[in-house]
Amino acid sequence: MTTTTSSPNAAALTAALPELREAYAALQAKGLKLDLTRGKPSAEQLDLSNPMLALPGTRSRGESGTDVRNYGGLDGLPELRAIFAQLLDVPVDQLLAGGNASLTMMYDTVAWAMLFGFPESPAPWSREETVRWICAVPGYDRHFSVCEELGIEMITVPMTETGPDAQAVAELVADDPTIKGMWVVPTYANPDGSVVSDDVARALVEMPAAAPDFRILWDNAYALHHLTDVETPTAPVLRLAAEAGNPDRVVMYASTSKITWAGGGVSFLASSPANIAWYKKHLAKASIGPDKVNHLRHAMFFGSADGVREHMRKHREILAPKFRAVTSILAERLGKYGVGEWTDPRGGYFVSLDVVPGTAARVVGLAKEAGIALTPAGATFPYGNDPEDKNIRLAPSMPPLSEITEAMEGVATCVLLAAAEAFAGE
Amino acid sequence: MTTTTSSPNAAALTAALPELREAYAALQAKGLKLDLTRGKPSAEQLDLSNPMLALPGTRSRGESGTDVRNYGGLDGLPELRAIFAQLLDVPVDQLLAGGNASLTMMYDTVAWAMLFGFPESPAPWSREETVRWICAVPGYDRHFSVCEELGIEMITVPMTETGPDAQAVAELVADDPTIKGMWVVPTYANPDGSVVSDDVARALVEMPAAAPDFRILWDNAYALHHLTDVETPTAPVLRLAAEAGNPDRVVMYASTSKITWAGGGVSFLASSPANIAWYKKHLAKASIGPDKVNHLRHAMFFGSADGVREHMRKHREILAPKFRAVTSILAERLGKYGVGEWTDPRGGYFVSLDVVPGTAARVVGLAKEAGIALTPAGATFPYGNDPEDKNIRLAPSMPPLSEITEAMEGVATCVLLAAAEAFAGE
Repeated sequence: MTTTTSSPNAAALTAALPELREAYAALQAKGLKLDLTRGKPSAEQLDLSNPMLALPGTRSRGESGTDVRNYGGLDGLPELRAIFAQLLDVPVDQLLAGGNASLTMMYDTVAWAMLFGFPESPAPWSREETVRWICAVPGYDRHFSVCEELGIEMITVPMTETGPDAQAVAELVADDPTIKGMWVVPTYANPDGSVVSDDVARALVEMPAAAPDFRILWDNAYALHHLTDVETPTAPVLRLAAEAGNPDRVVMYASTSKITWAGGGVSFLASSPANIAWYKKHLAKASIGPDKVNHLRHAMFFGSADGVREHMRKHREILAPKFRAVTSILAERLGKYGVGEWTDPRGGYFVSLDVVPGTAARVVGLAKEAGIALTPAGATFPYGNDPEDKNIRLAPSMPPLSEITEAMEGVATCVLLAAAEAFAGE
Repeated sequence: MTTTTSSPNAAALTAALPELREAYAALQAKGLKLDLTRGKPSAEQLDLSNPMLALPGTRSRGESGTDVRNYGGLDGLPELRAIFAQLLDVPVDQLLAGGNASLTMMYDTVAWAMLFGFPESPAPWSREETVRWICAVPGYDRHFSVCEELGIEMITVPMTETGPDAQAVAELVADDPTIKGMWVVPTYANPDGSVVSDDVARALVEMPAAAPDFRILWDNAYALHHLTDVETPTAPVLRLAAEAGNPDRVVMYASTSKITWAGGGVSFLASSPANIAWYKKHLAKASIGPDKVNHLRHAMFFGSADGVREHMRKHREILAPKFRAVTSILAERLGKYGVGEWTDPRGGYFVSLDVVPGTAARVVGLAKEAGIALTPAGATFPYGNDPEDKNIRLAPSMPPLSEITEAMEGVATCVLLAAAEAFAGE
């Protein structure tokens, strides 16, 4: 993660206020309708997997002879699990392939902990007076929504360039048995693009936790989603957890939502044998097995782990120019006034932009009035509450490059105008 | 539902004991490996949908232009919902299309009631001292498993030829606010093949219930699964519930698991606008939308509601001879001694066989020793407890006809041997 830091040139910006107001009026006059809100793949990216539209073609059986069309096979199709076990660096018998959303697997994990508890839980979490959870900020709004939905109180720790602040986490969990878990997006985190180092991963799996059933939900959503030719590996967290004597601490998730199709992909869950047994025990009551036809479709399309890697390079070719457009416009327009800090991610789906504190909501409001939809200010914090009102998540994957350029020029104008207003005391 | 009733000829059967022992020894000597345990479609049935293996082919957009490959669309693809709204006789805006298992939708409904309660619930059900549930018996083991998993106490009422004994249900729910719901399989019930009459449906939606949040989970799994040329319609329960002033009482489920593919089908949930809003509110935290590619695949394959009906007639051609084999062998072999009662279903996936009370477990054990796998005795009752130890669920859909004949001849031998042993006081 590269962060561009600069100290704002307040005087120059205040002087530019009339000019910025004119620029904003001109922006509004354009009548734009642009959207940078969500990390959705573009149609061009989805097209990369179009051979799957006609797969599995005539095949209806997996390699072992399983009829993929029928019931059963709670673990998912072995040949697809073999490919992703290699990519995620986990034993294949500790990896399940599921439906079209790893979010569902994460939700179920926490919901089942509430209803039943983990094997070593003193009680189902819903019986506890208070259940708390650590969220590194900025972070992923859907993670926060799962906690909020289930009545889990969220505590924040800062994100660093190497993942959640492990020291802050360790201090929190050491004495507080109500803290039952934390979210981690280890590779190219949403939204700041940070990558958890092996040291941070080791610290998180080694630290003593007061709650015997403390869990790290390790959402490796962007494991393979590189934006440069450096294909950063994810810390081998299951192995590290086992070595640390805490094999059951980590549950890992991944999916092909941003590899093949966001709505028609396959999700994965990997963990210790005990956690896998726990998860399957409950899953068996709720499922007749995953859609193995879609598993076969994916296995045939990829062929191998290298097939997936090769496929991801095609995504990179589409995405990298969009990210370059975002960061170069920010550098050019905001850099001039020394306003803002932003990430220059090496992978993932987001640029995290910190504007002048106290102006993020104003920036998002100005952009909206000019026809540019941004993720709501505060969305990257639990309860939508960014205490400094400064973080904005930019999602450049979906629109075509020309729209991104236009939208980002507009966003830059809004950021500068809001900053100038703030410096002018308005 | 036709039930063949006969009173056993104990003397003749006792006399036949040596001969039955010889027949059983001969059966064992065959070294069979046959399976009548689960209601799985056969490969021949799954083949009927094989054009879907190459669908949607080149299309990636729904009729309204939605890119089915991307995120979103929590309700499911409109054109597929339109087809099933017609078949299930519900308004399309009160019907959701989901993933590959209606069981998951049922589980989620009850799990979310436990975690959050329904809008009119005094509290989340998990906060109640006791939550109870009515199960008509014999019934579907996976329904019972959902209740057991979630700590819901099951109470049984008898099944009749027109569905659950509505009088017994009404008496139970009138004064007991701990009874929060009941399962109903309205059409061709698992396992007894009964069909809920309009009168019974009306009684169930009209009856006063002490629990303000009482729910009927109406699992219309076999709505279209006719075995004769009489295509029995399902009682229009959502309309009846609205007319009765209890619009939120019923949540309906269906799927294409036994229409297209058991592992790769589409599930449906239909209910009142308030229940749909409640379900979607929680679903939105757990899902990024269903697999709309699979929805499009199904919509293209069926074309229309009539396309589904036509398709179901092909299933009937495959299934009807298998059911005839089961009932004719039972009639021939057991009828001779007046032993047992069994259903002659007009649809669905099962024949329900009542053997001589106290011998069901023995019959299943004898069959197992002879290489014939049957559903465990008691499986059609909550907690696996058939108080009379007499019901056995036969599932003839999966094996080829020749195997069914062989298996049923064996089953008949086991039923007679167990009966003879019982009558002989052994």
